[in-house]
Amino acid sequence: MQAFLITFCISAMDLECASQETVKQGLLARGWPPIKGFSKHVKTKVFEFFSHLIKLGQDDPRRVVHSLKAGLALTLVSLFYYYQPLYKSFGVSAMWAVITVVVVFEFSVGATLGKGVNRGLATLLAGGLAVGAHQLANLSGRIGEPIVLGFFVFLQAAVSTFVRFCPQIKARYDYGLLIFILTFSLISISGFRDDEVLELVHKRLLTVLIGGSTCVIISVLLFPVWAGQDLHNLIASNMEKLGIFLEGFGDEYFKMPEDGESKEDRPFLQGYKSVLDSKTNEDALANFARWEPRHGRFQFRHPWKQYLKIGALTRKCAYRIESLNGHLYADIQAKREIRSKIQETCTTISMESGKALKELSMAIKTMVQPFAADIHIENSKSSVKNLDTLLKSGLWDDETDLLEVVPVATVASLLIDVVTCTAEIAESVNELATMLKFEVVEPTVSPEKTETGQPKIGIS
Amino acid sequence: MQAFLITFCISAMDLECASQETVKQGLLARGWPPIKGFSKHVKTKVFEFFSHLIKLGQDDPRRVVHSLKAGLALTLVSLFYYYQPLYKSFGVSAMWAVITVVVVFEFSVGATLGKGVNRGLATLLAGGLAVGAHQLANLSGRIGEPIVLGFFVFLQAAVSTFVRFCPQIKARYDYGLLIFILTFSLISISGFRDDEVLELVHKRLLTVLIGGSTCVIISVLLFPVWAGQDLHNLIASNMEKLGIFLEGFGDEYFKMPEDGESKEDRPFLQGYKSVLDSKTNEDALANFARWEPRHGRFQFRHPWKQYLKIGALTRKCAYRIESLNGHLYADIQAKREIRSKIQETCTTISMESGKALKELSMAIKTMVQPFAADIHIENSKSSVKNLDTLLKSGLWDDETDLLEVVPVATVASLLIDVVTCTAEIAESVNELATMLKFEVVEPTVSPEKTETGQPKIGIS
Repeated sequence: MQAFLITFCISAMDLECASQETVKQGLLARGWPPIKGFSKHVKTKVFEFFSHLIKLGQDDPRRVVHSLKAGLALTLVSLFYYYQPLYKSFGVSAMWAVITVVVVFEFSVGATLGKGVNRGLATLLAGGLAVGAHQLANLSGRIGEPIVLGFFVFLQAAVSTFVRFCPQIKARYDYGLLIFILTFSLISISGFRDDEVLELVHKRLLTVLIGGSTCVIISVLLFPVWAGQDLHNLIASNMEKLGIFLEGFGDEYFKMPEDGESKEDRPFLQGYKSVLDSKTNEDALANFARWEPRHGRFQFRHPWKQYLKIGALTRKCAYRIESLNGHLYADIQAKREIRSKIQETCTTISMESGKALKELSMAIKTMVQPFAADIHIENSKSSVKNLDTLLKSGLWDDETDLLEVVPVATVASLLIDVVTCTAEIAESVNELATMLKFEVVEPTVSPEKTETGQPKIGIS
Repeated sequence: MQAFLITFCISAMDLECASQETVKQGLLARGWPPIKGFSKHVKTKVFEFFSHLIKLGQDDPRRVVHSLKAGLALTLVSLFYYYQPLYKSFGVSAMWAVITVVVVFEFSVGATLGKGVNRGLATLLAGGLAVGAHQLANLSGRIGEPIVLGFFVFLQAAVSTFVRFCPQIKARYDYGLLIFILTFSLISISGFRDDEVLELVHKRLLTVLIGGSTCVIISVLLFPVWAGQDLHNLIASNMEKLGIFLEGFGDEYFKMPEDGESKEDRPFLQGYKSVLDSKTNEDALANFARWEPRHGRFQFRHPWKQYLKIGALTRKCAYRIESLNGHLYADIQAKREIRSKIQETCTTISMESGKALKELSMAIKTMVQPFAADIHIENSKSSVKNLDTLLKSGLWDDETDLLEVVPVATVASLLIDVVTCTAEIAESVNELATMLKFEVVEPTVSPEKTETGQPKIGIS
């Protein structure tokens, strides 16, 4: 049975790939390849699809667990049909419990809770209003009734649909409004044929509550996935990615091409790219997280807004790094002499900012005050001062071509920008640390610090 | 009745704002303000909410039209209940038509079609499989039946839920998989109580088809909103925003602070910020657009991938502009003498790249070959060469402090990067122009070109 589904998905992907290829070929060479080739192509695709699925599971085993949980929740609510006493009380209304489980059960607790609460409240509110509408319509006689009902349905659908465009509402209550439209229409229209509207509302509300609570209970009790924890980790890991880039940048930039290896083979330097587009993901996780109850180190009213602020500053830093990355592989490189003059200072700036970001990331992960980060930031700031002195002291002789200074000057300037960004990030992480009363652990500065020639500067 | 809904939304927003404020106050000062103040607060919020709604409608009147269309579609399908002959044939199954309309009707034709097709196909496929599962389960006797059915439901829910994690599937068939799980579970479970499973599948499929086609017909015939057109416009307007920034940047950067006005008051220079986060929106529109049939100047297999490519390059350019923007308001500004030496060339580079981007944007909007853009790009490239010469020629005397050269050098270098990005964008727009056979219109170069001191260079 599953084979059908999988074949459908594969052929869908396949068709899509085929269409991409067609487009690539300039929309000219349409048509089917010979059947033998096609069958081989399908086999390859099937193999690729399964390897892809296995990789999805390996990347995040919680996905496999979630799928099993979804299956379990659905099987549990289907007991309403199989078990005679339960079926007796609900009858076909048990269907609503099944529907609720299918649409409400989401990956994280926050998303499930948000949808569940939205669905429950919207059903209650819409059910109540629909009963009122039904009573009003009843007063207008057999001919007037459908007209009045139709008018109500039109009005509420139009107004609710319009309200869904409001971004603040859309972020948190979009699903609730959808269910509001759905329930109001269903109940008020059904009322025209079935006079036991209250009974209908009652059954629907109860089954929705049962379905919703099944989802929430399974979601919370069995290997819960907390959106808040995910957001927390995402913010920390994004910072770490930038840190990794900066730590590696100095050596990579100042390494001369004749050192052997090609510069292009540095996948660890490309990790920051995912940070550039992380806004949507962060916003969604923060929206889900706000529904979540207290869990582990996270309170109910955890300052998620502050996480978003840190995320925005991290992205700002990532934009600078994107510009820096462009210089890593630029065609025009500065002269070796000029580069070597500022190499040490620039490498230190980059390295210290990178370490600061990694320390900040670690501070968030472990919820410990980021003292060590402050030291690295001070180090990078004093390196910036050294760079200033170096630049003032006349780095070049009269014959130096300014054109050859430009790339180095730009890299230096971008690194100075990065230091500013890092300091801003550190400030907002400190704000978070104050809000959440991060643990205080005395910083231990690694001995390598002195090797960089930077003074050890006290915590600011 | 709507008052209830609106009050709910406002109080929801209100509570949220209140919670934000509480968080701002360091999670300390909780509690309700005095009732009088609170009532005034609610009044202000209600007023703000309504002004916000009115603004939403004014910003894009299509939203109002869409809401009315949604109301109309829902009222139309509710005829199944009101009109006796229709009700006779479908009975309570007519409910599925109502549900389909509520969940399938989306803002754009593409999104509606995508959801409709997903829902229709998934219902057909899941219905067929559920009938098979029902037959199989029937063979295992009255006691074995619920166990076999339960196993099937668990298996398909778990597998389908897992497949939904696959990004390529999620992008296009997520809703279909949801409906697959829903329909399969409902039909196979209902089959346990109701032996007329085929009748059930038939009615459900028919009502889903009726609901879906109502949505699609209204969506296509009454003031259609095409996702493809929206993507087309978005890509063009993003490019235009960057163009506006670049056209204004030169004058703004080289204007001396003593010229009077504060530099911070330039909202037109901040328009590019929205481009930084446009990826999600572009991806969603492209996904919807792929469902859309031929309309206006857009074919069924329009090269939407190429639009995404142009969008990605535009964002890359926007990252550089974000760095440039940082220099606009930087504390350390280069000396007036140094700045004035490269002012003209840099302003020309910025201006010409800006004009090129605006021309490219216009070319996409009007679907005309972007010849004029090529001229501006050539102009900006030759200005870059001039800048190189200027920098080589020894811009400064011996006393010049390199520290003061750094900001100018950085701006120059970023502008050179922007020219490269612009050329890349132009190349991909040209590819699009070839794919879509854009109209050829002889370029008319405005006379101001000569004033910039740049040679008029032929079309490359």
